[in-house]
Amino acid sequence: MNSKQLIVKMVFDRWYASIKNWDALLNVITDAQLEKEIAAGKNRGIYLLGHLIAVHDDMLLLLDMGDKIYPQLHEPFLRSTDKTIAQIPSAKELRANWTEQCAVLKQKMDHLTPEQWFEKHTAVTAEDFIKEPHRNKLNIIITRTTHLAYHTGQLVLLK
Amino acid sequence: MNSKQLIVKMVFDRWYASIKNWDALLNVITDAQLEKEIAAGKNRGIYLLGHLIAVHDDMLLLLDMGDKIYPQLHEPFLRSTDKTIAQIPSAKELRANWTEQCAVLKQKMDHLTPEQWFEKHTAVTAEDFIKEPHRNKLNIIITRTTHLAYHTGQLVLLK
Repeated sequence: MNSKQLIVKMVFDRWYASIKNWDALLNVITDAQLEKEIAAGKNRGIYLLGHLIAVHDDMLLLLDMGDKIYPQLHEPFLRSTDKTIAQIPSAKELRANWTEQCAVLKQKMDHLTPEQWFEKHTAVTAEDFIKEPHRNKLNIIITRTTHLAYHTGQLVLLK
Repeated sequence: MNSKQLIVKMVFDRWYASIKNWDALLNVITDAQLEKEIAAGKNRGIYLLGHLIAVHDDMLLLLDMGDKIYPQLHEPFLRSTDKTIAQIPSAKELRANWTEQCAVLKQKMDHLTPEQWFEKHTAVTAEDFIKEPHRNKLNIIITRTTHLAYHTGQLVLLK
């Protein structure tokens, strides 16, 4: 195993462990609990779920893996704060979106070689990438893993 | 920059950005706020702070960087849950410990070469490490970064 293969494994081990931690929580939290705020006056569980799907949908663009699956979630869960949009999808619907999205992302991610993970993501220009080679696709996984962990630390409060 | 140098930079960029996020919060949260629970019936902010210091102290052992700085924090913040120990250090004291520990960790971490970050950590045997080369020192940074992000998602609720 060369060093690129090794580090891609390390980063994805953490990504999938973080997805698993989130899923383990989501599976024991009921739809009624998801409607509750994680702390008084803060975001509801259902907002966190929608927000994660919206953020992970953006990963498809950043990783040059095609279009978003759920563009309709951008407005309520990325551009708006919780409890400001009257109509959001149900917990049941968001759970189904999340499961489907995780499968699609995994299938697409599995196709990339370790070398390809070190190629530039779409939000950096080829010119900048020469000077900043850390702005590669693998870095998107690293940053989204901590983002996921941050919100997992909040979802757990509903348990 | 070779691939090991690059990935060490990527991992540490995320580590230090996560420390910075935590510090930015800690700096605007008062000692009185730290005494509050992050959500009804959950851990207090002061417990999260002590817990992080205790976990990062363990990193010194795992990274083979010497003894813990605050071994007395192991019992109240790793082996015990919040509100079960009558006497814990004050917020003022823990803030000072945290600042000191961050400086010590950085100073020690700065000494390792990219090659050394790919060497085994102390919780894996040389024999197992041959089969599982991902159990290296850099992986300790990766896992502790998500741990830190998880608790940052909780501390922010006190703001």
